[in-house]
Amino acid sequence: MATRIHNFSLSLDGFAAGDPQSFETPFGHAGQRLHAWMMATRVWDPEHGTSGVDEAFAQQYWRGIGAEIMGAHKFGPPGWQDDPDWRGWWGEEPPFHTPVFVLTHHAREPLEMGDTTFHFLTATPAEALRIASEAAGGQDVRIGGGATVARDFISAGLVDHVHLVQVPIVLGRGTQLWEGLEGFEEAYDVETTASPSGVTHLVFTRKSPLVTS
Amino acid sequence: MATRIHNFSLSLDGFAAGDPQSFETPFGHAGQRLHAWMMATRVWDPEHGTSGVDEAFAQQYWRGIGAEIMGAHKFGPPGWQDDPDWRGWWGEEPPFHTPVFVLTHHAREPLEMGDTTFHFLTATPAEALRIASEAAGGQDVRIGGGATVARDFISAGLVDHVHLVQVPIVLGRGTQLWEGLEGFEEAYDVETTASPSGVTHLVFTRKSPLVTS
Repeated sequence: MATRIHNFSLSLDGFAAGDPQSFETPFGHAGQRLHAWMMATRVWDPEHGTSGVDEAFAQQYWRGIGAEIMGAHKFGPPGWQDDPDWRGWWGEEPPFHTPVFVLTHHAREPLEMGDTTFHFLTATPAEALRIASEAAGGQDVRIGGGATVARDFISAGLVDHVHLVQVPIVLGRGTQLWEGLEGFEEAYDVETTASPSGVTHLVFTRKSPLVTS
Repeated sequence: MATRIHNFSLSLDGFAAGDPQSFETPFGHAGQRLHAWMMATRVWDPEHGTSGVDEAFAQQYWRGIGAEIMGAHKFGPPGWQDDPDWRGWWGEEPPFHTPVFVLTHHAREPLEMGDTTFHFLTATPAEALRIASEAAGGQDVRIGGGATVARDFISAGLVDHVHLVQVPIVLGRGTQLWEGLEGFEEAYDVETTASPSGVTHLVFTRKSPLVTS
């Protein structure tokens, strides 16, 4: 059982989202630029999308995942905690199909939508991972982001596989991944793959797999 | 005639050198980590070095260059301007073999060493490039760094070819390349090449070549 991050897009200057983030602009001034590589694949557009290395990496997101942990910023725009009717970005059939643990300081009842159930949790990374691992039924746990959550779990030494997608743009401002991660790479082997689309896939694999259960 | 940046190494978090920089540690706490990819090639070690994609890129540094422009930080450690005997890092046969223009607010006489001559210049990027272009005798001008100079010339729209080498380490602090370069990529086509050594070569080519003379 492993803990994984997938399809985590970031700019050359390390931003995983632009600024300011709102309901209309969930990725701020980055718009869709950080995720255009994925939207061009069959993951997003099954009929006309590409099926090259970008799709191959992107599809890994769903393989063998039993639960996801995400940050409050991923579940909704700033202020969603005050809106009891907010049910996430993804409509009535969210694409997760597993339990999803949303880290938030605002407790609310679990929310069942299709075969995804959102649980709202106030917990440290280690506690959240323990709970998610139990719910994952022997499968892997995905750390779904955003950047703050990814960084917290990586710096706590809790992530076994990190797939980053570097997009060759400079955003200048937004949500940084790298703050506080100095030297994190020492615990990992790294493999880099340049895609014809212009993005670079960086895959970090823990040298000594972490036992999460 | 073109203006080029080559072999510009930087960490995942965008630092071209660590901190603090001194005579003993010209790249600060980064040590040799940012340049190990090049030191492993025949460029650095002709007898035992590698001759793969890293060497191919690294060798481009010297091809068709008629002059270099470098920042004061590249010529010497902090305070070299107050030492009239400082003659650069490179010994009596510097590896440039062309005129080199060192941007500094401290004027001094030109310094001839082997077939390299260092000129000390107080000038804007555009002025420096005009002077270096004249000295280059029809060949290209290399912007030699460090990060501040690279950034100043890129943001002034004066660089035609930018070769960056991204090393998969997080430094956490040091000299940033990306500050103020938001959106610079819009003026360039980009090509990415992953090396088996783990670094990624990013080459930016101006969409509309700049006339520099």
